Amino acid sequence: MPNLDICFSPDLLSLYDLRGRIAVVVDILRATSSIVTALAQGVTHLVPVETLAECRALAADNYLTAAERDGVQAEGVDLGNSPFGYLDGVVPVQGRCVAITTTNGTRAMHLSRAADEVVVGAFLNLGAVADFLRQQGKDVVVVCAGWKGHFCLEDTLFGGALAARLAQDFDITSSDATLAALDLWEKASPNVAAYLLKSAHVRRLNRLEAHKDMEFCVHQDEYNLVPVWRNGEIVKL
Amino acid sequence: MPNLDICFSPDLLSLYDLRGRIAVVVDILRATSSIVTALAQGVTHLVPVETLAECRALAADNYLTAAERDGVQAEGVDLGNSPFGYLDGVVPVQGRCVAITTTNGTRAMHLSRAADEVVVGAFLNLGAVADFLRQQGKDVVVVCAGWKGHFCLEDTLFGGALAARLAQDFDITSSDATLAALDLWEKASPNVAAYLLKSAHVRRLNRLEAHKDMEFCVHQDEYNLVPVWRNGEIVKL
Repeated sequence: MPNLDICFSPDLLSLYDLRGRIAVVVDILRATSSIVTALAQGVTHLVPVETLAECRALAADNYLTAAERDGVQAEGVDLGNSPFGYLDGVVPVQGRCVAITTTNGTRAMHLSRAADEVVVGAFLNLGAVADFLRQQGKDVVVVCAGWKGHFCLEDTLFGGALAARLAQDFDITSSDATLAALDLWEKASPNVAAYLLKSAHVRRLNRLEAHKDMEFCVHQDEYNLVPVWRNGEIVKL
Repeated sequence: MPNLDICFSPDLLSLYDLRGRIAVVVDILRATSSIVTALAQGVTHLVPVETLAECRALAADNYLTAAERDGVQAEGVDLGNSPFGYLDGVVPVQGRCVAITTTNGTRAMHLSRAADEVVVGAFLNLGAVADFLRQQGKDVVVVCAGWKGHFCLEDTLFGGALAARLAQDFDITSSDATLAALDLWEKASPNVAAYLLKSAHVRRLNRLEAHKDMEFCVHQDEYNLVPVWRNGEIVKL
């Protein structure tokens, strides 16, 4: 039976051998939630880049640019890090490609590149990711983007929710991180948005827009798609 | 109000500025539980060293030697890592000093040395540590020794238990790590030993001796003493 482990911070990834495994990168607030939403709204592919300069440079190649630093949309780019940027119609996204950089999510993806496959996970596509992992049957490491290297609740809850969905098909008991995430998910799952109101990151983004985003980002199974990062591009499988 | 944060792995310590703060190093199974027990049984001081060679070298200076690697007593030393080594009378410890090296605990202490004070915490001296921290009134970081850098349940539960004891006097809500530890502690506290039977580390040490150790190590407030690491020696305050 394949194993499901959870890495609570990109800064702990050196402890994991990702070769032969699938990495599920998660940054619920809000990078991976936005990527899933973007692909659902007809974006053709996204290129995650580490710096604002790289992001802006891709505008010349007809990319839309999406960038956030410390939770706020960066200057001189088309989109921030809110999934509603792909939903509200202000910037038409259908058929476009997007260059994206975020505080934590992009870094987590780049540090996961040794994996056989890098999958983008969010509550919005939880069931689709679970189905994909079941079909593949390989060991899985959920890579929590965290907040500047620190443990964060929302990404951990995703790990717990994914482990709960895969309980019949994966070994979810051999790592303490997975056991802890399952217990936290059990506590939070009756009302994830209410639970997350206490989290440091949600309080950091304590604005109306952020709460609206958070409530959207904890919806499960809104989109039936699996984004993978291949040859530098995030595409829908 | 001072802040209480929890660092889930020594490998994440670079994210924390320990200057001006108190570090509470915890390795429930079993280094810090054994250190507290040793001082309670009349050991004058302990010297934590990183290598077996350093540990054995101190035998020439009339130190008792205590060493464990991967959960098993190392060869050619007086004591392993079980607190019962200081209780069973096989090796007389009263009035002796001890050189100690363990897989995770020693490393966590050495990486915490930037702190104003390095305190040794365990369930066995939980109340004494809480009282000391309340008197000091400084910011606190609980440093979980973990298992070879990985998150582990038992050290996290100690962090949650300490946060619960200090809820009136410290800010225990501004880090997600502390919030998670509190929720896990709430779940585990009715029967900590039963809860830990599922943990990876306890199953790794799945032997009669280890279970006996584990049940002892989760006793709260067995000893009213606070070990601190000063000038290379762990002494009773």
